[in-house]
Amino acid sequence: MPDNKESSTLSPALLLEVAGRYQDTAALTAAIELDVFTAIGEGNVTADALGTRCHAAERGMRILCNALVIIGFLTKSENRYGLTQDSAMFLDRRSRAYMGTIPRFITSATSRNAFALLTEAVRKGSTALPGQGSMEPENPLWVEFARAMGPMMHLPAEHIAVLVDAKAAKRSKVLDIAAGHGFFGITIARNNPNAEITAVDWPSVLEVAKENATQAGVASRYRGLPGSVFDADLGSGFDIVLLTGFLHHFDPNTCETLLRKVNNAMTPGGRVVVLDFVPNDDRISPPATAKFSLTMLAMTKAGDAYTFSEFERMLTNSGFGPVTLHEVPRTPLQIVLGVKKTH
Amino acid sequence: MPDNKESSTLSPALLLEVAGRYQDTAALTAAIELDVFTAIGEGNVTADALGTRCHAAERGMRILCNALVIIGFLTKSENRYGLTQDSAMFLDRRSRAYMGTIPRFITSATSRNAFALLTEAVRKGSTALPGQGSMEPENPLWVEFARAMGPMMHLPAEHIAVLVDAKAAKRSKVLDIAAGHGFFGITIARNNPNAEITAVDWPSVLEVAKENATQAGVASRYRGLPGSVFDADLGSGFDIVLLTGFLHHFDPNTCETLLRKVNNAMTPGGRVVVLDFVPNDDRISPPATAKFSLTMLAMTKAGDAYTFSEFERMLTNSGFGPVTLHEVPRTPLQIVLGVKKTH
Repeated sequence: MPDNKESSTLSPALLLEVAGRYQDTAALTAAIELDVFTAIGEGNVTADALGTRCHAAERGMRILCNALVIIGFLTKSENRYGLTQDSAMFLDRRSRAYMGTIPRFITSATSRNAFALLTEAVRKGSTALPGQGSMEPENPLWVEFARAMGPMMHLPAEHIAVLVDAKAAKRSKVLDIAAGHGFFGITIARNNPNAEITAVDWPSVLEVAKENATQAGVASRYRGLPGSVFDADLGSGFDIVLLTGFLHHFDPNTCETLLRKVNNAMTPGGRVVVLDFVPNDDRISPPATAKFSLTMLAMTKAGDAYTFSEFERMLTNSGFGPVTLHEVPRTPLQIVLGVKKTH
Repeated sequence: MPDNKESSTLSPALLLEVAGRYQDTAALTAAIELDVFTAIGEGNVTADALGTRCHAAERGMRILCNALVIIGFLTKSENRYGLTQDSAMFLDRRSRAYMGTIPRFITSATSRNAFALLTEAVRKGSTALPGQGSMEPENPLWVEFARAMGPMMHLPAEHIAVLVDAKAAKRSKVLDIAAGHGFFGITIARNNPNAEITAVDWPSVLEVAKENATQAGVASRYRGLPGSVFDADLGSGFDIVLLTGFLHHFDPNTCETLLRKVNNAMTPGGRVVVLDFVPNDDRISPPATAKFSLTMLAMTKAGDAYTFSEFERMLTNSGFGPVTLHEVPRTPLQIVLGVKKTH
C-alpha cells in the first residue's frame, strides 16, 4: 500500500471518468429518444410510471434515470425523479426553448466517424475523413445541422438583430452566408420590415431555411442563392453580411479570400457579423469555446477556433475596420463585428 | 431577448457539454495511443517537440494538448505543456503505476456497441447485445480485461491481502473466481507463502493470470480451473473465496445460487471477499460507483451495482454472516466481506 503522504492525494479518478464519458453522451441521447424529460415534466415521476409512458422497462428506466441524476439532468427524492430548471427549459419537448435536437448534430455519424479517427487526425494535423471532411460539397450533415441546431440559435440571432439595430428599420440588404436553418437572417427580417435577405447554402439546406422563413412570415423578402459561397456571384450592395459558424471551417488564407469577396459585395460602412467560437489568446479558455478547436481538427482540413486577434487580422487584411468583439451570454459563442472601410 | 430575471440563470451548457463528452474520451484515447503523456514527462513540452517525438503534426499536437489542458490532464504555461501529478503517476508509461491501458477495456468494441444500443437496452431492461451480452462464454472481452485492467487492481488487491491477513502466513486455500489478470489471488500468494490459489476463468484468460503468477514468482502455488464457475467442480476446503467484479453481472437469484455453491466449497469460518461497485441505498452516490449500474444495463441481461443491504441479503441467504462493508480509498470500489457460518 502506498505509504508516503503525497501518493495519498493521487487518484486515477479523472482517467476512469473521461474513459467512460462517451457513456454519458449515450445516456443523454437515449433519454431524449425515449422522451424521458417530457414524460417527467408531464408528471410521470417514478421509474414505473416512466416505463409505461415511454414504452420501456421499469428496470431500464430506473437505471437510466439514476444515471441522469448523477450527470446532473434530473433530481431524485425518495425514488421520485424531477427535472432541473435547465432540463425543464431545454429538454421538455413542450418548452418553447426545447433543444433536445442538438445532440443529433453533435453526435451525427460524420462527427462520430471523425472522432473515431482522431489519432490519425492528430498525426496528419487535418481531418482523417475522406476529401474535405465535413466541408464536402452537399454533405448531408448540413441539412442535419439546419434541422437540429436552429433552437440553439434563437438567442444569438436576437443578439445579432440588436447589434445591427434591426429595429431602426432602415432599408437593408442582408447576405446570410451558409445560412443553415436561416434564423440569423430571418430574425433580422422579423425585426426590420425593410430588410431583404439573400441566403447562401446548398440547395437541400436552403429548403429548410425557406420553410423557416415562411413560418416566420418573411418569405417574400427571403431569396435563396444555392451553391458554394466561394463560387457564387454574390452581387453587390449588401449592408449586412452574416458569417455565422462558418469561418472556423477554413484556414486563415481561405477566410481572407472569402472576406475580400464579401467586402467587394458590400456598401461602404456595411457590417460583417462573424458569430463563432472565439477563445482567448491562451486557447484554453473559456473551456467550452476553446475546446471547439478539437472538432475542427477532427472534421476539417485546416479549420480552427480563431482568437479575436486572428479574426481582427483577417478582417483588417480584407478591408474591414474597426473590428470589435461582443459576448453572447449563456452560449459558448462570441461575435466579431467588422465595418467595411469607406476609402 | 429573454427579459425576466429567472431565465438569465438558465443555460443549455450541460446539454451541450454532455452531448460532446464522447469527444473527451476520444481525446484521451488518442493521447494515450500517441504516448503524449510519456513524451511530455520526458521533457518534450512544446507542440513542435511533441509532434517530432510522437510522429504527429505540430498543429494536431497543439490542438490535442489544448483539449487535454481543458479536460484536466495537462497544464499549460506560455505554450509549454506539463503533466498534472495524476497524469505523471498514471499516464506516463515510465511510471510503475501506469494505467494507460484502462481505456482499452472501458472503450472496447463490445462496450461501445452496448452503449450504441442503450436506448434499446432501456426499453428491454436488459442488454441489447446478442445472447448473454458481455457474459457470452469465452467472450474475448475478458482477455482484454485481464490485459488492460490489471494496473488498476494493485491497490484493491493489496487492500484485500491486508483484510484477509495474508501476512499471518496461515495455510490457506484460496479460490479466485473469474480471476482475470489474477492479481487478487497472486497478491495474497505473494504475501503468504503458505497460500495456494485456484483460479477459475476461461482458458484464454487463465493464460494471462498464469503469466502474471509466473512473473510474481508464485506459479508453483497457482492452479487454473478452466471454464464457467457455474459448471465447474470447485472441490472443497477453501479458506478464502474471491469474487472480484463478478456478481454485478448477474441477477440476485443467480448470485445466491453461486454463493451457495461457493459456501459449500468452503471451510467453516472461511471468508468470501466481494470486491464490487457498492452504491449507497439512494443508488446515485458515490457518483462513479453508482453510475456503474448503467454499464450493467447496457452489457448484461440482468446485472446491477448492488447496495450493501442487497449484498448482505444475498450472503445471509447463502450461509454467510456476519457481513461487513469496507472502503477501498481512491477507487470507486468497495469490499463486502462475508464469513461462512459454522453451524
